[in-house]
Amino acid sequence: MGRWEPGARGRLGEAAMELFAERGFEGTTVSAIAERAGVTERTFFRHFADKREVLFSGADDARDVLLRTIAEAPPTQPLLEVITAAMQVIAEEAFSDHLEQARARQAIISSNAELREREMLKFAVVTTELAEAVRSRGVPEPAATLTAELGAILFRVSLHRWLEADNDRPLAELITDSLQHLRAVTSPA
Amino acid sequence: MGRWEPGARGRLGEAAMELFAERGFEGTTVSAIAERAGVTERTFFRHFADKREVLFSGADDARDVLLRTIAEAPPTQPLLEVITAAMQVIAEEAFSDHLEQARARQAIISSNAELREREMLKFAVVTTELAEAVRSRGVPEPAATLTAELGAILFRVSLHRWLEADNDRPLAELITDSLQHLRAVTSPA
Repeated sequence: MGRWEPGARGRLGEAAMELFAERGFEGTTVSAIAERAGVTERTFFRHFADKREVLFSGADDARDVLLRTIAEAPPTQPLLEVITAAMQVIAEEAFSDHLEQARARQAIISSNAELREREMLKFAVVTTELAEAVRSRGVPEPAATLTAELGAILFRVSLHRWLEADNDRPLAELITDSLQHLRAVTSPA
Repeated sequence: MGRWEPGARGRLGEAAMELFAERGFEGTTVSAIAERAGVTERTFFRHFADKREVLFSGADDARDVLLRTIAEAPPTQPLLEVITAAMQVIAEEAFSDHLEQARARQAIISSNAELREREMLKFAVVTTELAEAVRSRGVPEPAATLTAELGAILFRVSLHRWLEADNDRPLAELITDSLQHLRAVTSPA
């Protein structure tokens, strides 16, 4: 891709979110998104497979960071802690300054059954890839799958808490807090 | 429903599983299932909304047992243990004598993207109901949602292990074993 592309991608994302808010997800066409961003439809399709993908492209970036962090982690650190630390980096870099944008995105997804299913599938695919990355670090099953599933739950629960209307705690802090709750819930009586 | 109904429901389930194995899921019609079971299509639709539901009706029964057990649990027992114990009862009563049937069912679901999504949605719905039941017992958030999500993961991972070709351990034992792995994975370094 040429060096102008990140700019077009960013403008397309912003234009799509504006239009989803103004006209609803169903009422927004790819042609309208491209027009608002000042690019051609062809350029849109160079960046996104369809208008739904605009909402989920960030998940792929987060997935890449997670997989790289697992691959490079020191061999002695428990991988759930590695995953938690990586999610906190993602929280700081990709989420912390974008609370209103994240709330708008979640409102669009929540209002549409097809998007809710797509989100669930995305989580499932990333969880499967996480488990594979954990196995590659020598963790046997079922520990590898359990580690990946716990990472996915921690992120989902923390994100949900962060997006709540009355929340004022940062996402990274909520991830730490949710891990503590997770440990309390799993400890024997 | 009349007292003959459980028999018709059971025959419809068996007929559907036979036909899915013989002709594939896509190649099986409701009409063929009803004919094989010796009942009318109308009777089929009294028991199942569509042919997919034949594969998932057991999940509703399991859900009912889980919700009842949570509601009746002694107030001091940690609810993840209550859920684990209830899943073990379900494993003994509904799964233990039906390994081949469960493997056939999973093979049908795995071969069809729509069915895999349906299974994922079913799990998500039951998990949401579980969290609601746990909250009703006075457990605040995020512990309630984490408890329900952990219960769902334990069941999914244990079921997957039970269905593996080389497994010879009972499902109830694998649930206990998976809980121990879960605790090991979550414990701090």
